[in-house]
Amino acid sequence: MKYRTLEFKDGVLKLLDQRRLPVEIDFYEAKNYREVETAISDMVVRGAPAIGAAAAYGVYLAALEYRDLPGEEFFKKVFAADRELAAARPTAVNLTWAINRMEKVLKTRQHKSEGPDQSIDGLLADILKEADKIALEDVEINKAMARHGYEVVPERGTVLTHCNAGALATVDYGTALGVIREAHFRGKRIRVYADETRPRLQGARLTAFELVEEGIPVTLIADSVAATLIRDGKIDLILVGADRIAANGDTANKIGTYMLSEMALKFKVPFYIAAPMSTIDFELGSGREIEIEERSPDELTHIRGLRIAPEGVNVYNPAFDVTPAANITGIITEKGIIRPPFTEGIASLRNKQESPGN
Amino acid sequence: MKYRTLEFKDGVLKLLDQRRLPVEIDFYEAKNYREVETAISDMVVRGAPAIGAAAAYGVYLAALEYRDLPGEEFFKKVFAADRELAAARPTAVNLTWAINRMEKVLKTRQHKSEGPDQSIDGLLADILKEADKIALEDVEINKAMARHGYEVVPERGTVLTHCNAGALATVDYGTALGVIREAHFRGKRIRVYADETRPRLQGARLTAFELVEEGIPVTLIADSVAATLIRDGKIDLILVGADRIAANGDTANKIGTYMLSEMALKFKVPFYIAAPMSTIDFELGSGREIEIEERSPDELTHIRGLRIAPEGVNVYNPAFDVTPAANITGIITEKGIIRPPFTEGIASLRNKQESPGN
Repeated sequence: MKYRTLEFKDGVLKLLDQRRLPVEIDFYEAKNYREVETAISDMVVRGAPAIGAAAAYGVYLAALEYRDLPGEEFFKKVFAADRELAAARPTAVNLTWAINRMEKVLKTRQHKSEGPDQSIDGLLADILKEADKIALEDVEINKAMARHGYEVVPERGTVLTHCNAGALATVDYGTALGVIREAHFRGKRIRVYADETRPRLQGARLTAFELVEEGIPVTLIADSVAATLIRDGKIDLILVGADRIAANGDTANKIGTYMLSEMALKFKVPFYIAAPMSTIDFELGSGREIEIEERSPDELTHIRGLRIAPEGVNVYNPAFDVTPAANITGIITEKGIIRPPFTEGIASLRNKQESPGN
Repeated sequence: MKYRTLEFKDGVLKLLDQRRLPVEIDFYEAKNYREVETAISDMVVRGAPAIGAAAAYGVYLAALEYRDLPGEEFFKKVFAADRELAAARPTAVNLTWAINRMEKVLKTRQHKSEGPDQSIDGLLADILKEADKIALEDVEINKAMARHGYEVVPERGTVLTHCNAGALATVDYGTALGVIREAHFRGKRIRVYADETRPRLQGARLTAFELVEEGIPVTLIADSVAATLIRDGKIDLILVGADRIAANGDTANKIGTYMLSEMALKFKVPFYIAAPMSTIDFELGSGREIEIEERSPDELTHIRGLRIAPEGVNVYNPAFDVTPAANITGIITEKGIIRPPFTEGIASLRNKQESPGN
């Protein structure tokens, strides 16, 4: 991608502001963890993997802010900041996953000395290194995922995707769109249908933008057009990202995904999730336990600040839905493709090292 | 309704401009048939029954415009204007139906004298009367439909609707929303979920507006939320309008309707169409023959004139989809509710007089 989703330099997390893309190319600069928290909750940065990486830098910024506090106080404040960051969006588990990784590094130090050791600089360097690692790894993970996913893409055909699971949803390359990029660059002749993805239009604004930039043929549709395309045999593969996957394979993703999976099941279209292992919440037995974020009614009643719906209307605006494992053909991860039965497949991949050559 | 969808007075068809509702209450005045044609194609007026009534007045305005032409020329010009009006939107059959009714009156006169008879004033009066009759009848038809439909609405529960099949889609009262009005006014305790209905947001703008005005509890949702509500048992009845119904019951309605019908079928939620007999196209054996209007890409790439999607993206923007008869529980008409098998039910209602008491 010409533009980076996020970049950390000189104590500033620079985020490509995804609220105004593609019409305006703006950047949002977060100089402390509160600004990172706002960027996540306002969706300046969105997409489960990108949120994880942004939050990791948020943890570092909190540590930087509290560096002069005495030991116990320092950790208390940083961990409190972590809880705020973690609460910015409740569904994407990558957020908690990244914060946990950062805290693990912090806790090693805490354990050693019951406070930061003599060198707070050393601690700060360690956690910055961990945040950088999370960000860098994400790109590698996406590329590994794309290599595994390549096999499920037809040599020639159409792929339907929902929301944005691209470079903009990750540090770079993308999950579902990473697979599409890989297939395109390696010569498969695919055309993409992109659901516009109400209410925030990530499909129209972000997925279409990424694919047009890459020269991958893309057709934009309203979300409710997908059903007839699937019925009429015009879709060869459905490929989406994920925000949280339960241990049994049930998958939370952008609202609208579930409906696609029902159509895919009925009309026998392969339906794949592409997501890093960090999206799997091994603690959750099933999708019923996934908390679904409800967002502001304004996302439906207003467009660009202008009211469209009447005053006094109630609004129900869940950001995600849960697709049952039974509707999913496979889950593409950096460690390989998990196929049913998912409970076994997920458990067995959990401790597997990434396969050689990846 | 506080506002009339359409009103004809002193040679002017005054239309409530539905493009800006509910934020702006504007009226559009059509003083000739070309302005009526533009109002229909631009969706100043929309909804199959309302389009029919508007077109009827369009035919009258054409006759008024050509009143001074010699006989043969007069009919040639008026019939040519009719073809333009009929082409304004291809899917809603009520448009053709209303124009055919108007032409029948014109042709009686043409036959008599091979030109308008001495009194062009008499002819004009006759066709204005026919247009008024079409408009007035529409309200009565909707009320009859509502009385029949009353029985399928639960005493207490939730009704999901899509697009706007209300007073604003008709001359008054509405088809699907007419049934909802009737049930509400007669004491059934119903709550409505309104799909926002992309791309033109008739649910958010028009259905929500009508129901808020009537004091009927309404919750607005993105179109892709409906699937999970249906799965989770939160919808007791689905009730929508129609733009064209084939002789076998296959029904064209706003894009997104088909997807609801698949969910309804799977989760055993009653799925009803409410539409006047004039929406049935007896000439069409099945829904495969229904022409589906494709509208401008701008409806997806722009919002209120502002670009949201990148330049260079392809767009597929069908306005309607076809729900197969097999997914439909019943079709509520002014003559009664048609139930499967629809081919037989539709044929037998075709010539039936409206039942006494209605």
